[in-house]
Amino acid sequence: MPHITPLEYDQAPAAAREVFDEIKQLRKVEDVNNFWKYLANHPSVLRRTWDSLKQVMAPGALDPLTKEMIYMAISMSNGCDYCIKSHTAQARAKGMTEEMLEELMAVVGMANETNALVAAYQVELDQALKD
Amino acid sequence: MPHITPLEYDQAPAAAREVFDEIKQLRKVEDVNNFWKYLANHPSVLRRTWDSLKQVMAPGALDPLTKEMIYMAISMSNGCDYCIKSHTAQARAKGMTEEMLEELMAVVGMANETNALVAAYQVELDQALKD
Amino acid sequence: MPHITPLEYDQAPAAAREVFDEIKQLRKVEDVNNFWKYLANHPSVLRRTWDSLKQVMAPGALDPLTKEMIYMAISMSNGCDYCIKSHTAQARAKGMTEEMLEELMAVVGMANETNALVAAYQVELDQALKD
Amino acid sequence: MPHITPLEYDQAPAAAREVFDEIKQLRKVEDVNNFWKYLANHPSVLRRTWDSLKQVMAPGALDPLTKEMIYMAISMSNGCDYCIKSHTAQARAKGMTEEMLEELMAVVGMANETNALVAAYQVELDQALKD
Amino acid sequence: MPHITPLEYDQAPAAAREVFDEIKQLRKVEDVNNFWKYLANHPSVLRRTWDSLKQVMAPGALDPLTKEMIYMAISMSNGCDYCIKSHTAQARAKGMTEEMLEELMAVVGMANETNALVAAYQVELDQALKD
Amino acid sequence: MPHITPLEYDQAPAAAREVFDEIKQLRKVEDVNNFWKYLANHPSVLRRTWDSLKQVMAPGALDPLTKEMIYMAISMSNGCDYCIKSHTAQARAKGMTEEMLEELMAVVGMANETNALVAAYQVELDQALKD
Repeated sequence: MPHITPLEYDQAPAAAREVFDEIKQLRKVEDVNNFWKYLANHPSVLRRTWDSLKQVMAPGALDPLTKEMIYMAISMSNGCDYCIKSHTAQARAKGMTEEMLEELMAVVGMANETNALVAAYQVELDQALKD
Repeated sequence: MPHITPLEYDQAPAAAREVFDEIKQLRKVEDVNNFWKYLANHPSVLRRTWDSLKQVMAPGALDPLTKEMIYMAISMSNGCDYCIKSHTAQARAKGMTEEMLEELMAVVGMANETNALVAAYQVELDQALKD
Repeated sequence: MPHITPLEYDQAPAAAREVFDEIKQLRKVEDVNNFWKYLANHPSVLRRTWDSLKQVMAPGALDPLTKEMIYMAISMSNGCDYCIKSHTAQARAKGMTEEMLEELMAVVGMANETNALVAAYQVELDQALKD
Repeated sequence: MPHITPLEYDQAPAAAREVFDEIKQLRKVEDVNNFWKYLANHPSVLRRTWDSLKQVMAPGALDPLTKEMIYMAISMSNGCDYCIKSHTAQARAKGMTEEMLEELMAVVGMANETNALVAAYQVELDQALKD
Repeated sequence: MPHITPLEYDQAPAAAREVFDEIKQLRKVEDVNNFWKYLANHPSVLRRTWDSLKQVMAPGALDPLTKEMIYMAISMSNGCDYCIKSHTAQARAKGMTEEMLEELMAVVGMANETNALVAAYQVELDQALKD
Repeated sequence: MPHITPLEYDQAPAAAREVFDEIKQLRKVEDVNNFWKYLANHPSVLRRTWDSLKQVMAPGALDPLTKEMIYMAISMSNGCDYCIKSHTAQARAKGMTEEMLEELMAVVGMANETNALVAAYQVELDQALKD
């Protein structure tokens, strides 16, 4: 066995099943995503990740859709395929339109281009930004 | 001279001064940021970058503050110091509150953590996300 | 042919077969991993990579399992799927338990989160760390 | 003010001072590192990060020095200067010798080289690693 | 539908078909690559990306093959599989020999190794490089 | 002492001084760059890195300037400041003109933008590129 396999509810240890139950209840879904089933192999990682994510993605000063789009943008820059696909699905479910996605794509492209240009040109900080 | 130095308006070639004028007019600022002064060494890069950025960051389906925060999040994940500082300043100018920044920080932290976990666990795509 | 294909022993140039023989002898395996079969297309890259890797991963002040886990952690942060899978297999073969993997996963997640937070907050070095 | 400034104990909100106290007590230090003083601007981020880090870096199946070295290796690959310097100091305090550091450096270099080569050659997974 | 699907010519909006026509004419190809078919979902991104890329990759002070190899090297460092495969094909079409590819691979490996070592050792700039 | 300090010739161990002598002779310089002085703390890393780099950067199917520019492009994408500055200096010494640098910058920007877009759109490989 080269690597970790996802655990279904019945295979998961009790500590993992508890987290599965919390996710299903909070998100009103019948089953959890694969991400959680993989983490279920390590209940301490599963528990800590879920506790943090639940708190971080809750509505607050930023609405949940804005948070999803920020998550997507980071995942796109990092090239995390699974993250891009799962968070795009969640963002669409929270109301992201095709026009919003088009503009998000444009920002992702430009930010990565200008991040590279800032490094390439070795741009130093403006005095006004230091003060 | 090991590297490129920023060009002030008076030192910049005519093609770069044109771009400087457009930036100052659109953004209603008296001087352009260092980023543009470095790019002024290469007017074709300066012109193309400004034309793209102006279009991408304009108000649309996403408001300018949301775009700035997405830009910040990518720059934070990429570790681009100049980008973080200059876009944080612009986001604050466009109304980002301390509470919004606190939540942005939390998403940036969690997205980078879970992006790494998805790779670490080699999570495969759910059937439901493939369909 | 869009890209490079792996070369089996019989197809590989003599200089590559020599390296294959060294790997099989040192690691006591019947066949080399795909990584080496791809590099066999370019014997100079194969030779230099093997000579370095053999030296770097040998037992020393750090034991081979610790080296494998460091390798895994870097590969997970870089999102290199092949590297993660092949080094996880090697780490398990060298005695990595499920509990050790669970804690490795936790460190990989946290290090990537705090690396991003350090950039996000633009944390400057403590005086005590400068001295 | 372009960006966030570190908060000393006296300037920090009560919720942050509580975390400072826990860090100082657990680590037996007189003052906390800058990292925590920056996060103190956002007590929810500070609290969550500390609670996770404390748990993740505690002794377990992996000893604390091994965890520090894994942390260092990731920070080196990610190019996080502050993280490298602070965790190197902590690893030395926990017993990392110069010989161990020399070997860690070698693994960091090689892992990043071979991660890039795996991508460059588009290495596909061996059948043996799939099974 | 979890994500974006590529649009063939007949499915694409008029603004995207215009770009398709330009690509086919300039590159003398019968069909465009998948990259453009995905971007066709968002004609503003497609148009801006094509206009920039056409200009950037045109012959100039650097010949088109050198530009392709630089593109490949960046894509290999970033781990972008599609980019590696499509630009390797284009570089071969422009005359890249197997010997040139072998040396490119070597530089990609070494640059990523030494980039990591520079971070790991926290190398500071030489006075001679500052002047 | 939080981290490693560069070693001058007189402070360096004998095995490191040997490498310093080789670098000075091959490159016809009076002193080595800081990079080598840092690595001198760990003679095995210094020796292996120099032996590899000397071989990889030698003239071959690619000329030394092309290799330097590929090195620069990778370093710019990875955000390695020291690497960018030292290799830009070496590329200029080998004949890189300002026009060549301008075009290199443009490719670096575009490659990072399109690498991100390929991830963002989750572009799948064309059939023609698979065959």
